Amino acid sequence: MGADSKDVCVLGIDPGSRVTGFGIVREVSGCARLVETGTLRMGSEKNLGRRLGKIYEGIAALVEKYQPDEAAIENVFVSKNTMSALKLGQARGAAIAACAVAGLPVSEYEPTKVKQALVGTGRAQKSQVAFMVAQILGVPKPDWAEDASDALGIALCHLNMRRMKRLTGL
Amino acid sequence: MGADSKDVCVLGIDPGSRVTGFGIVREVSGCARLVETGTLRMGSEKNLGRRLGKIYEGIAALVEKYQPDEAAIENVFVSKNTMSALKLGQARGAAIAACAVAGLPVSEYEPTKVKQALVGTGRAQKSQVAFMVAQILGVPKPDWAEDASDALGIALCHLNMRRMKRLTGL
Repeated sequence: MGADSKDVCVLGIDPGSRVTGFGIVREVSGCARLVETGTLRMGSEKNLGRRLGKIYEGIAALVEKYQPDEAAIENVFVSKNTMSALKLGQARGAAIAACAVAGLPVSEYEPTKVKQALVGTGRAQKSQVAFMVAQILGVPKPDWAEDASDALGIALCHLNMRRMKRLTGL
Repeated sequence: MGADSKDVCVLGIDPGSRVTGFGIVREVSGCARLVETGTLRMGSEKNLGRRLGKIYEGIAALVEKYQPDEAAIENVFVSKNTMSALKLGQARGAAIAACAVAGLPVSEYEPTKVKQALVGTGRAQKSQVAFMVAQILGVPKPDWAEDASDALGIALCHLNMRRMKRLTGL
């Protein structure tokens, strides 16, 4: 069983109605490297159309610039209430559509899966996940926003799952 | 106060995770005319990315083909549960992003507003709204799907609100 020699680049997204985090990582010779991370912020923009257009265009611009092969996003099953679920859904819809239109396959992972892939337990604290993301990428004292770190965690989880699938031949 | 001579074309959208209705109407000399109506159906497509990509591309293709000036969508405040709100939000996000990226301003109307604009009361039955939509557009026995008819209702509501604003100078 030969190792897959093609380096893969993954875009992780943590969408939100106010802030959308993104993290791009590339697997180079089996090692995860940070390419870019940051947030798309809606700021004071109140118009729903322009907010969602901004998310779509922001993600589309990242895909255009960094040419990731695949995208990953956190799955959500719970939300405070239906209104916040609707708002989150709208942000997710704009972000996922941008990936799909660019031809990127989008994988979804449950939050416990992301924690398990990075810390080894689905009940890990957010700070533990952030710590492991920084460790894996070799950035000792990162100044990433929380949403950016979360997006990197999702991208790393996806890389991990790809590696597992490749090794087990599933 | 002269009448606005420019004919306006409006795209009404009724988004849903399985079926998204659309209705395009044009105001010609103060009279609403049907341009096109129909539905975008996800069918058996299970992949979330491809579903949302299909909504985005479907709306983008309609905007490209019919060149509407403005878009209108129903506002939603209630939903059965958070999961259905999330799914509806995702469909709305993809549809609204497609309008916004094409430069269309998107107006939102509450369901009671749409009913009031068409039937005169916010508590009208769905069938009454469908009947009035067909009457206004001069289509005696329409074979439109319910989602298509709803989308036409939203577009007509928007035309109505524009006319009111023009007349009152607001």
